[in-house]
Amino acid sequence: MAAIYGGVEGGGSQSKVLLLSEDGQILAEEDGLSTNHWGLCLSGGEQADAVKKLTEELRERFPYLSESYLITTDATGSIATATQDGGIVLISGTGSNCRLINPDGSESGCGGWGHMMGDEGSAYWIAHQAVKIVFDSIDNLETAPHDIGYIKQAMFNYFQVPDRLGILTHLYRDFDKCRFAGFCRKVAEGAQQGDPLSRFVFRKAGEMLGRHVVAVLPEVDPVLFQREMGLPILCVGSVWNSWELLREGFILALTQGREIQAQNSFSSFTLMKLRYSSALGGASLGARHIGHLLPMDYTANAIAFYSYTFS
Amino acid sequence: MAAIYGGVEGGGSQSKVLLLSEDGQILAEEDGLSTNHWGLCLSGGEQADAVKKLTEELRERFPYLSESYLITTDATGSIATATQDGGIVLISGTGSNCRLINPDGSESGCGGWGHMMGDEGSAYWIAHQAVKIVFDSIDNLETAPHDIGYIKQAMFNYFQVPDRLGILTHLYRDFDKCRFAGFCRKVAEGAQQGDPLSRFVFRKAGEMLGRHVVAVLPEVDPVLFQREMGLPILCVGSVWNSWELLREGFILALTQGREIQAQNSFSSFTLMKLRYSSALGGASLGARHIGHLLPMDYTANAIAFYSYTFS
Repeated sequence: MAAIYGGVEGGGSQSKVLLLSEDGQILAEEDGLSTNHWGLCLSGGEQADAVKKLTEELRERFPYLSESYLITTDATGSIATATQDGGIVLISGTGSNCRLINPDGSESGCGGWGHMMGDEGSAYWIAHQAVKIVFDSIDNLETAPHDIGYIKQAMFNYFQVPDRLGILTHLYRDFDKCRFAGFCRKVAEGAQQGDPLSRFVFRKAGEMLGRHVVAVLPEVDPVLFQREMGLPILCVGSVWNSWELLREGFILALTQGREIQAQNSFSSFTLMKLRYSSALGGASLGARHIGHLLPMDYTANAIAFYSYTFS
Repeated sequence: MAAIYGGVEGGGSQSKVLLLSEDGQILAEEDGLSTNHWGLCLSGGEQADAVKKLTEELRERFPYLSESYLITTDATGSIATATQDGGIVLISGTGSNCRLINPDGSESGCGGWGHMMGDEGSAYWIAHQAVKIVFDSIDNLETAPHDIGYIKQAMFNYFQVPDRLGILTHLYRDFDKCRFAGFCRKVAEGAQQGDPLSRFVFRKAGEMLGRHVVAVLPEVDPVLFQREMGLPILCVGSVWNSWELLREGFILALTQGREIQAQNSFSSFTLMKLRYSSALGGASLGARHIGHLLPMDYTANAIAFYSYTFS
């Protein structure tokens, strides 16, 4: 019987599964609902205990599904889809996370702690910042940097409530992180229409994402800086669809941080996007885990969408 | 049959009930567990819908309990315990809230949106800030203003986890706001022992609480500024037990904010604490609601613990 390698990209809002033949051909693929065992957009795969429980449950509930399991983080699956030997994975979807995977396979990171302790620069964070600026402005606790009119109205419309008290239901009793984060789209629409406060929030998000990259710079293997494309940064998640809105803040944070954190050896970078699900890299890692090297066409798997060289 | 007036102080972690005779004597009192219908430390009494439902449920489940119900906010009950005609109630317990009750009974405020949208300066906020500084420092996302050693160890001890991943369980799956906020006590202990980071967090909390007062200054009836004691600020909640740690930040925020927000008509203030439960004021308001004035000894009900005149 021919070997089949499966890859699953789990996520807080949707999931993807792929089946590959041993020569790397995709035999089947399917989309699914949330598979995040935390009910969050965390990379729960890092917790050894949770991994053990999940593997046991898979073996118990589906004893004939697979001979071998490998559960790892979103980031590891993503980078294994885009590059042979590492780079930075910068996730900004519902949540956010920055992971560095060095050529020797060692991993370090910044963020990924979920909306209660981080998620800076994510869709949730953008939605939350926008709402928080409106709350604080009405409260006279903080002066908003720009007129709150657009976001205030967009917020009442999106959550279908008449006032701020109505928002509380969406933050507590009926809290749904992905639904709350969905308000980010309305902020993006505002920014595209030129609303200064919406643009401000996205610029700040870009800055926060840039600061996550800065945070891991001291750990980057210098080899990754010296690539022709500069440091490879794989951008994952739907917030990157608004790259134009993030750019100014992102470049600012990197320009400010690179001198202190990387002694200027960090001189350029390239942002990439996956063209295929990280389930592909997952299948590749799963195969490697049991000694089989699945052929991967990295240049087809990921495309570069922005390159920058510091002056 | 003699009339009896009951007062209930509901709260996120504990509650109190009092029964008073029509001449204001306490006939009975009892402590109880959490009665907050949000499962939070929010002033849910502000929501007309929730008030209606709660009243209906009380009538249905306990048809002979009371002829009349009045459900209002923590703040209104507290100020009615301490003063005849208003002032500021500044709550910092598990959550935080600032309410201004003017002599004409009108109310405005700042905060009280719960831990997802505010709670600045509360025990939850102090605990969260302390933990967040540790997370961000280890992540290299932010440089901590002082050594994180004490708080990091205190955090692992308090939550009984070996590392940061262990904390996530307490923030998500097994989240208990009051339990999380309880870590504030360990930060207070650190501050009392001289730990610079713990002191820093409390100073920031004092500043945030002060900024809440500043936020409502434009709405204050000038009569309240002109009292002999200056503006009366009723401090409610256990974080005020650490007033010495909050003071510097609190005074700083008021000094910075009063010129812009109150044109210097705000020249002094007095901080007060209740000696009796706000259930007392609740009973008084309930009685007033049906036309009876319960005699109240305000000087016995609250004590001044700090007065300050701006130079």
